[in-house]
Amino acid sequence: MNVASRSPVVARLAELAKLGAYEGGIDRGLFTPAEHAARLLFAGWARAGGFALSQDRAGNLFARREGTSRRAPIVMGSHLDTVRTGGAYDGAYGVVGALCTLELLAASATATHHPIEAVAWAGEEGSRFPMGCLGSGAYAGLNALEQIDALVGDDGVRFSDARAGASGLLPGVEVRDGFPRPAACVELHIEQGPIMERAGARLGVVTAIAGQGRYEVEVVGEPGHAGTIPMIVRHDALCAAAEIALGLETTARQLGECVATVGHFVVEPNQTNIVPGRVVFRVDARSVDDERVERIAAALGDECARVEIQRGVTCRIKQLERRASVPMDERLRGALHEALAPLAERVIDVPSGAGHDTMCVATVAPAAMIFVPSAGGRSHVGSEYTAPEDLELGVEGLARSIAAVDRVLSKGV
Amino acid sequence: MNVASRSPVVARLAELAKLGAYEGGIDRGLFTPAEHAARLLFAGWARAGGFALSQDRAGNLFARREGTSRRAPIVMGSHLDTVRTGGAYDGAYGVVGALCTLELLAASATATHHPIEAVAWAGEEGSRFPMGCLGSGAYAGLNALEQIDALVGDDGVRFSDARAGASGLLPGVEVRDGFPRPAACVELHIEQGPIMERAGARLGVVTAIAGQGRYEVEVVGEPGHAGTIPMIVRHDALCAAAEIALGLETTARQLGECVATVGHFVVEPNQTNIVPGRVVFRVDARSVDDERVERIAAALGDECARVEIQRGVTCRIKQLERRASVPMDERLRGALHEALAPLAERVIDVPSGAGHDTMCVATVAPAAMIFVPSAGGRSHVGSEYTAPEDLELGVEGLARSIAAVDRVLSKGV
Repeated sequence: MNVASRSPVVARLAELAKLGAYEGGIDRGLFTPAEHAARLLFAGWARAGGFALSQDRAGNLFARREGTSRRAPIVMGSHLDTVRTGGAYDGAYGVVGALCTLELLAASATATHHPIEAVAWAGEEGSRFPMGCLGSGAYAGLNALEQIDALVGDDGVRFSDARAGASGLLPGVEVRDGFPRPAACVELHIEQGPIMERAGARLGVVTAIAGQGRYEVEVVGEPGHAGTIPMIVRHDALCAAAEIALGLETTARQLGECVATVGHFVVEPNQTNIVPGRVVFRVDARSVDDERVERIAAALGDECARVEIQRGVTCRIKQLERRASVPMDERLRGALHEALAPLAERVIDVPSGAGHDTMCVATVAPAAMIFVPSAGGRSHVGSEYTAPEDLELGVEGLARSIAAVDRVLSKGV
Repeated sequence: MNVASRSPVVARLAELAKLGAYEGGIDRGLFTPAEHAARLLFAGWARAGGFALSQDRAGNLFARREGTSRRAPIVMGSHLDTVRTGGAYDGAYGVVGALCTLELLAASATATHHPIEAVAWAGEEGSRFPMGCLGSGAYAGLNALEQIDALVGDDGVRFSDARAGASGLLPGVEVRDGFPRPAACVELHIEQGPIMERAGARLGVVTAIAGQGRYEVEVVGEPGHAGTIPMIVRHDALCAAAEIALGLETTARQLGECVATVGHFVVEPNQTNIVPGRVVFRVDARSVDDERVERIAAALGDECARVEIQRGVTCRIKQLERRASVPMDERLRGALHEALAPLAERVIDVPSGAGHDTMCVATVAPAAMIFVPSAGGRSHVGSEYTAPEDLELGVEGLARSIAAVDRVLSKGV
């Protein structure tokens, strides 16, 4: 299969990029008009290709090509929602790439043993409803539907109401009952980091999805007039929080092969002439080595204890999330490497620092991921970019990989 | 005059404290319904005392007791507006204390050479319209009325419209033309800092109002995915800003007799999973020694230059405000010390770290200030507190001081 020149992936991504676009990027939260329009586009393309459409109550949308046997499907997909300042590739590429792969299989009349499904997983980013990997988590049985239904979006709308609303489930598309298990899962995605670009590799096979710890820290000092409180008697919550943030940066740098980020940081009362009395910030620590995440969490505790003593502030640490690293399936990784090797000079193993829907699906089926490079490692920003030839190569790689996975899984049967 | 037990200052402050009160403190911006109600209360008390009322187009409100000659008045007063998280004493105490002083002079039938005016200066805090000491600055001719009229409040309302609106100038009160110069100015205020409490002094004579520099710093780094960008290639705007803030804290501590505060600090995009791409923060530097403010400004420049090189970010520094220290009038300070000495065991000289209306009026007339202690040095917070006996002692001190200033100023004539 040589498909690069025939793939409509670039044009489709450009079309999707208009939905939710604003000056700073793309904002497409689950069950918003923009995200609904994106699912409608996907459905239209799928229907035009002759694939059977269905959706489930979590909002996941499936396009299916039947296999030669009645096995569980191999699913491939990603998500159509974005962060508030999203780009054109994160998520959308994997969905469009999966659909293009279905078309390639159909165009080349490739028979697979397994049914193959291209999936748009619902609400991966958690940018509207406070739950990441919402749809894939429901699909994998990690999140109960009643729990999801009760979620309230940042606009005050309940998930169950949003689903039933004008931007919710697609009209005229069959709604599946329950969440059947797949035979395997392969996700195509941009790297979102600079490793592949720096290594000069156009295709990557993911080794593992990093484990993650998220913590919220509340630092309470003493507010006061910025002109009248001598430095020596201050309990400045901002200075205390700044020390903790810099301490975590140093820790992560020294440990290596891990990241620690303070991305959310809110000061109270946040007035020029008032010594900050309270700061709430969040720490995001990740590594494919779970031990390193634990060491960052320990450093956070140590830093807080130190500033409490040295600055007379109080710190409260709340763990918001803790999930272990998810290694990709060895057998599938081998199949992907074999399928991709002929396509590029260098196919590298690469860790995923970002979370993905596949990390949920991996709990119920063997799973793997293919990465293409991100320019400058940029992602979750409007300037997110992957070269068209890399996008097309990735789709060709996914098509070859799906065929390979179908063969590998069929061997043992 | 022994008046402590007869002064209604405490009851009146309690009544004012209800206006604009919310859970966290008092929010009483200029020309809001709460601030309008405060001026109405003041006007009612002044009328009941038989004092002539007038106002000017900047919103300043005057209660006047005539003197024995047609000289320019000695003005005493402070402000009725508050910061968004204000307390019951900052400003209001000086206004109520001035009115109580007029009543004491009347009750004791004390004849003064100068007319004496109790003034509520408009909009000292700059919490609604973007200009501090708005009314006193207009009175002193520092801000032209056309300039003030064009100011737009944080709610989008123009000053000139707010003045003409339901919460603007008081109906039925004479509007003065222009801004005549006073003979002198004395302001009674809470210290807002911990120096007097720590020194065990119940009355203070202000030496100077600190000079101030305000700067806005924009740090631009590179936003990116918090999971995928290795620590070593990041340009994290928050970490850079944190280093600058801590550097300024160290500088101010080492210099002594000055303060430097980062009170306003805003992160973009401020999402847990995105490396901060931009931080805008404000620095407030103050000292009665102008040289020290300059040294903090220089340190800010140095810190920014350092993080630009070390972290690959860019920093832009904008000076928002720079005003020199305002020394209080030597002759008036002497008169105040003489007047206050019999009232308290210790009357200390104390600098004012906060700005006050008197700093504007001091540009056109000799000026002085009296401080009473603030519990724990707290101010600009709901828990701002001064003991009732100290409030009453301050009013007695102001009454004695006004009589003394009247005598001192009359000597040379």
